[in-house]
Amino acid sequence: MTAPLRVALLGCGTVGSAVLRLVREQAGDLTARIGRPVEIAGIAVRRPDHHPDVPQELLTTDALGLVTRDDVDLVVEVIGGIEPARTLLYAAFEHGKSVVSANKALLAEDGPGLHAAAAKAGVDLYYEAAVAGAIPLLRPLRESLAGDQLRRVVGIVNGTTNFILSRMVETGGGFAEALAEATELGYAEADPTADVDGFDAAAKAAILASLAFHTPVSSADVYREGISAVTATDVARAAEIGCTVKLLAICERVPNGGGEDTVAVRVHPAMIPTTHPLASVGGAFNAVFVEAEAAGQLMFYGQGAGGEPTASAVLGDLVAVARNRVAGASGQGPSGYADLAVRPMAETPTRYHVSLDVADKPGVLAAVAQEFARHEVSISTVRQTGRGDAATLVIVTHSAPDAALSATISALRDMPAVRGVTSVLRVEGLS
Amino acid sequence: MTAPLRVALLGCGTVGSAVLRLVREQAGDLTARIGRPVEIAGIAVRRPDHHPDVPQELLTTDALGLVTRDDVDLVVEVIGGIEPARTLLYAAFEHGKSVVSANKALLAEDGPGLHAAAAKAGVDLYYEAAVAGAIPLLRPLRESLAGDQLRRVVGIVNGTTNFILSRMVETGGGFAEALAEATELGYAEADPTADVDGFDAAAKAAILASLAFHTPVSSADVYREGISAVTATDVARAAEIGCTVKLLAICERVPNGGGEDTVAVRVHPAMIPTTHPLASVGGAFNAVFVEAEAAGQLMFYGQGAGGEPTASAVLGDLVAVARNRVAGASGQGPSGYADLAVRPMAETPTRYHVSLDVADKPGVLAAVAQEFARHEVSISTVRQTGRGDAATLVIVTHSAPDAALSATISALRDMPAVRGVTSVLRVEGLS
Repeated sequence: MTAPLRVALLGCGTVGSAVLRLVREQAGDLTARIGRPVEIAGIAVRRPDHHPDVPQELLTTDALGLVTRDDVDLVVEVIGGIEPARTLLYAAFEHGKSVVSANKALLAEDGPGLHAAAAKAGVDLYYEAAVAGAIPLLRPLRESLAGDQLRRVVGIVNGTTNFILSRMVETGGGFAEALAEATELGYAEADPTADVDGFDAAAKAAILASLAFHTPVSSADVYREGISAVTATDVARAAEIGCTVKLLAICERVPNGGGEDTVAVRVHPAMIPTTHPLASVGGAFNAVFVEAEAAGQLMFYGQGAGGEPTASAVLGDLVAVARNRVAGASGQGPSGYADLAVRPMAETPTRYHVSLDVADKPGVLAAVAQEFARHEVSISTVRQTGRGDAATLVIVTHSAPDAALSATISALRDMPAVRGVTSVLRVEGLS
Repeated sequence: MTAPLRVALLGCGTVGSAVLRLVREQAGDLTARIGRPVEIAGIAVRRPDHHPDVPQELLTTDALGLVTRDDVDLVVEVIGGIEPARTLLYAAFEHGKSVVSANKALLAEDGPGLHAAAAKAGVDLYYEAAVAGAIPLLRPLRESLAGDQLRRVVGIVNGTTNFILSRMVETGGGFAEALAEATELGYAEADPTADVDGFDAAAKAAILASLAFHTPVSSADVYREGISAVTATDVARAAEIGCTVKLLAICERVPNGGGEDTVAVRVHPAMIPTTHPLASVGGAFNAVFVEAEAAGQLMFYGQGAGGEPTASAVLGDLVAVARNRVAGASGQGPSGYADLAVRPMAETPTRYHVSLDVADKPGVLAAVAQEFARHEVSISTVRQTGRGDAATLVIVTHSAPDAALSATISALRDMPAVRGVTSVLRVEGLS
């Protein structure tokens, strides 16, 4: 019997305990797939007395001591957050341990630094579980599509917000109501900020864009709007134009005149056609839509969170880094060779849907249209509905720089004939 | 400048010429991603005069001479079929060349032999393009889900038959009509046997099952029924129970009492609920639905054929084997360690939908129900519709061994009260 590969597990919450269970239940299969047995060398937790089901001799509060131990080969980090995870990962690399992490926040903040440290040590850093839970996504982007040119990656990558928006569509209710339901059912955390304000999706977008475009992109590069301002009116207006509302993470390669392409990375709610493959992704599911030059359109769909699905992704990575360790090699990290510039949101082309309450009198449509023209925003469709002395104008624009669109909206708000801007949302995927 | 990796391209049809174009157009990106440039050393074709657009000095009719040349590092095989591809691949391995192939027929017939030859030579054999074109599928099954236990893989993996069935659903017409349309539009070949009779899908099912269950499965192990017997009535009956008709490749891990699990692999048309994620996969698209123990349900969707999408998958593999070559390593092949028994179709649990024209008189339903019971087939739903002296019975069964179901149908055909069995199709994905 060959000596086992020994794993330090950092964190033993929902994901960590699922990892622990799977490593034990599938010991035989893992041994066959890796070529050597895998065993847990220790588990770092903050409060050992909170884990009565775990063999007590494995538990330690000294995470740094554990990752640097000589009898540890591989480190699985499922603590989350920036610190102490960052310090522990750098320490692991320095001591020659390969790392599997599910930590999107850390990877999105410090991906290039971590990869450089791993490469310097000749070890692996894998993190499939950091984006879209169990859905195999990073490996396909990094490897399967390595011979293609990616144009866009558009994903529903946050289950909490997708649940909330799905409920708003189903019930016709508002954001606060749907959030309360999500909290009650355990889909939203007590402090839902990271999900609802788009921080979680923005970290995932940064990771996806980095891999898709071979360009370092961090969370700070990602334009971010959450869903707390989405109203029942927005959802109703979307339905009227055959759309639904989703929080999208959008990574695009944008041509730049004659110069080098740029990348635009953003997270915001948007109307998408109900016929779009992403529109039917309901509840807590995740899906990511990819457009590549040769491959065309691809979609990946599955459970984006939860202990078991996330643990499945962690185990897949664990098998990969363990195989590399057995082979005496390390897998290739993502390349940042392209190093394209990140385009500011103001210059990123988007499309808007706008609903206006206006006075129903001659010249109002002309004045509104003139305001769009003045900002060089071209209108795709207008629908006017009269209601006595008032009318509703629903306008969908063509693509224009985001700053021109938002400046148009500001100008419309100041027009005397415009009684109110009742709904503004970006539109994606309309032809 | 490091010396380029030199590639022998075998075949220069739709896929081969797309590979050639991509290798040239993306030369800079490929160099950055691999660490060394890639160049085409030669292209083996049968008739050099049919390729006026290709540099003539690269063309050769001596494929065997090309793959064994000292200045060739990697071989890309897009000829298809068993011979001469098989001989060429074995020769390539013997001469230390890694191979990227899109050849589903060959891989499904001789996968274990080819993998053994590659392993013996310490080189790679990759074939993502062999199943579902551009959709990253084999790498996720082999690597991303390597720490999980797969239960089922169900796919729409043949675009021709999916186009034909989609047209039958849209027009209400019959098979012959839809096939004629597919032929005219170039979706079906002049001899459509390989697609229509399920041979293509069966080869892909064998490859998927081998990877999913770590068990060698060849085309000969796959139960196969094509779509030529699917009628407009079948399609109409499917719609009546909220289903649509698809040709499915189904790979399952089936519990076996107290003994070791078995695998069941089959290709046949089936009714699936219109709410199933696979139901909306239209036209020439492919999609594969995966159920894993921890990951839950996953779906992969994209273009299943065509020169560019297939070439994208070939290039992804080319980058992988080239990187391995640069690193002086080889990737791990699929493991057949589990070596589970393949369950015969007769013993595989399936569900049937049956429509019967019966005499509308007392005792007929009882007699029909008795026939199911006699074969130990449990009925899930029955719907009877009277029409004068005749009635239609639509029956959906619970799961039972396929042989019991087909024996029941034979017995029903012989019952005097049964005037005709108007539709029989298996049902998948109903709760």
